[in-house]
Amino acid sequence: MTGTRLEALRHTMRSSRLDALLITHLPHVRYLTGFSGSNAACLLTQGSLWLGTDPRYATQVEEEVHEARIIVVHGPLGMALLRRSRLGRRARIGYERFRVSTGSFDQLRSVRPGTIWRGIDGLVDDLISVKSDEEIAAIRAAAKITDKVFSELLQWIRPGMREADVVAEISYRQRRLGAEGDAFEPIVASGVRGALPHARATSKRLRRGEMVTLDFGCVVDGYCSDMTRTVALGRISPQLRSMYDAVLAAQLSGLMAVRAGVPARAVDAISRAVLKQRKLHRWFRHSLGHGLGIEVHEVPRLAPRSGDTLQEGQVVTVEPGVYLPGVGGVRIEDDVVVTRSGVELLTHSSKDLIVL
Amino acid sequence: MTGTRLEALRHTMRSSRLDALLITHLPHVRYLTGFSGSNAACLLTQGSLWLGTDPRYATQVEEEVHEARIIVVHGPLGMALLRRSRLGRRARIGYERFRVSTGSFDQLRSVRPGTIWRGIDGLVDDLISVKSDEEIAAIRAAAKITDKVFSELLQWIRPGMREADVVAEISYRQRRLGAEGDAFEPIVASGVRGALPHARATSKRLRRGEMVTLDFGCVVDGYCSDMTRTVALGRISPQLRSMYDAVLAAQLSGLMAVRAGVPARAVDAISRAVLKQRKLHRWFRHSLGHGLGIEVHEVPRLAPRSGDTLQEGQVVTVEPGVYLPGVGGVRIEDDVVVTRSGVELLTHSSKDLIVL
Repeated sequence: MTGTRLEALRHTMRSSRLDALLITHLPHVRYLTGFSGSNAACLLTQGSLWLGTDPRYATQVEEEVHEARIIVVHGPLGMALLRRSRLGRRARIGYERFRVSTGSFDQLRSVRPGTIWRGIDGLVDDLISVKSDEEIAAIRAAAKITDKVFSELLQWIRPGMREADVVAEISYRQRRLGAEGDAFEPIVASGVRGALPHARATSKRLRRGEMVTLDFGCVVDGYCSDMTRTVALGRISPQLRSMYDAVLAAQLSGLMAVRAGVPARAVDAISRAVLKQRKLHRWFRHSLGHGLGIEVHEVPRLAPRSGDTLQEGQVVTVEPGVYLPGVGGVRIEDDVVVTRSGVELLTHSSKDLIVL
Repeated sequence: MTGTRLEALRHTMRSSRLDALLITHLPHVRYLTGFSGSNAACLLTQGSLWLGTDPRYATQVEEEVHEARIIVVHGPLGMALLRRSRLGRRARIGYERFRVSTGSFDQLRSVRPGTIWRGIDGLVDDLISVKSDEEIAAIRAAAKITDKVFSELLQWIRPGMREADVVAEISYRQRRLGAEGDAFEPIVASGVRGALPHARATSKRLRRGEMVTLDFGCVVDGYCSDMTRTVALGRISPQLRSMYDAVLAAQLSGLMAVRAGVPARAVDAISRAVLKQRKLHRWFRHSLGHGLGIEVHEVPRLAPRSGDTLQEGQVVTVEPGVYLPGVGGVRIEDDVVVTRSGVELLTHSSKDLIVL
């Protein structure tokens, strides 16, 4: 499985005249080697793939990795990999400029003073953004668990519960349904706290007449789901109702606009325009969506100034929101596969306003 | 509360002739400003503290931060902070070399070409390692929840359960007892999987005659606990029993050696020597412990080549382990406050071998 990925990178290395790639970003190392430990780096050349980790993972790395030569060492892994490599003194090595600290880079340069270092920003990010059927299946399985937990939640969530207890239930139920864990700390934001897009759950209790934003996802086979629904606890104000309708219209318009070949910023613009018609756009203060995979936030970015073009096989979120300080917030988010003709929806929970 | 911390840094800035510090590591930003969002940076001068974040956190940052001037922007925060600062053209700015990527650093340099940049490795890390009474109280509260979950767990854990289900229960119960979340993904490693120090829980079921390593912790007021116990499911082999006794002896010896003024590597050496007497040291392949606070891994490092000296008020873990491939593993870990005379124990769960 990792074979095709490595060949794609080797092809780019040849056309960019790079002798090696040093990959230090953990999700990328996992993508290229299959290793899921918390300390790793890999070095790819035309003829070899080396993976470095530390002794805590000595046994695990042998279980997980079959297509790389493994070194197990204490201390900086990039330096260890470079020392083992048989690269020439003036080798050209690509590295991820925004994933290597200046301190680590100084160390790397000291190991190999003659090396010509080249930034390869976005190279692995672009490759990883287009998913194989197997990867999509993992995200689909994660989304299915998230959907199931949401449908269960409608049965037990009620006024009087604390936000933090709702988080505990969501997290528990995702794991019990087979998830490896949460894709991120679940967000449960009720009432005026819904106006905080990334609110931490608190001991605040849910109250009748409030809306509750529920944003959660889980991990299956290393891949993430990420879904948001906003539900009403009993009768809500006309203002909240019209916010909900606006966000839903924006979300559906965004979904309809997703298709391979479309600029990501055009999709963002379409959703934003729907909110503008209703004079709510200034309360939509984040981007429309993002790629989804081993990481919760990957390329492409669906944002006003994004330079990305949607590609077949990418998995992205579409998640407009409106956040009115002192009033409340609404966000609705689905995960979709980008196809040639539009999208395949991976999250299926209802988006009609649910009044509990 | 953050005032004392800022004054300590300003004192160092004066003696190092730095005009400003640019802090980009999120736990450090939280420590200095109180802001808990996932995107932030701050700039400290003798007369001011600026905090930058993005519009998702516009409301939250106003709630959490009272002692800094706030800027809310899209895009790279370090650049935005530097543009707002009134620093002279040849200002000397300290930054965390191992926390700023080469790509970000190039951006920073392009904003202020005349700046003299100075690495301040370890400056905030050392400051943050010594805890106030308030911080210790938070870790104590987190440890109390972890202890309580362990005592409950002894009632319900049993052969036939899947490792992953034990993780789900631990995580759920920590949250229900008031934790903000897990300090890290709980480790539940049974039987031969106990030989993987950082094993992810799997669908493997616990079996009679096995040992199970349980390593978990939670977050209270932003501070982490981190405890490990290894328990036996029914009668275990003499080999496993002697491994347990050896690790316990090593752990107790390590605890006894902790005291303000002692080199951290000396504590590691004492625990390691106990295992050496029993010819098990080659299966203890990680460091003895680490600082604990806002992050699960902070300074000091209790490791063979550590240059740290233990200081009063630091909170550290002491966690030797023995991992025999194909046989199993044992690890025992407590959290302690370093005092002038020894330690204050924060985790209180029994370390006698528990046979369930």
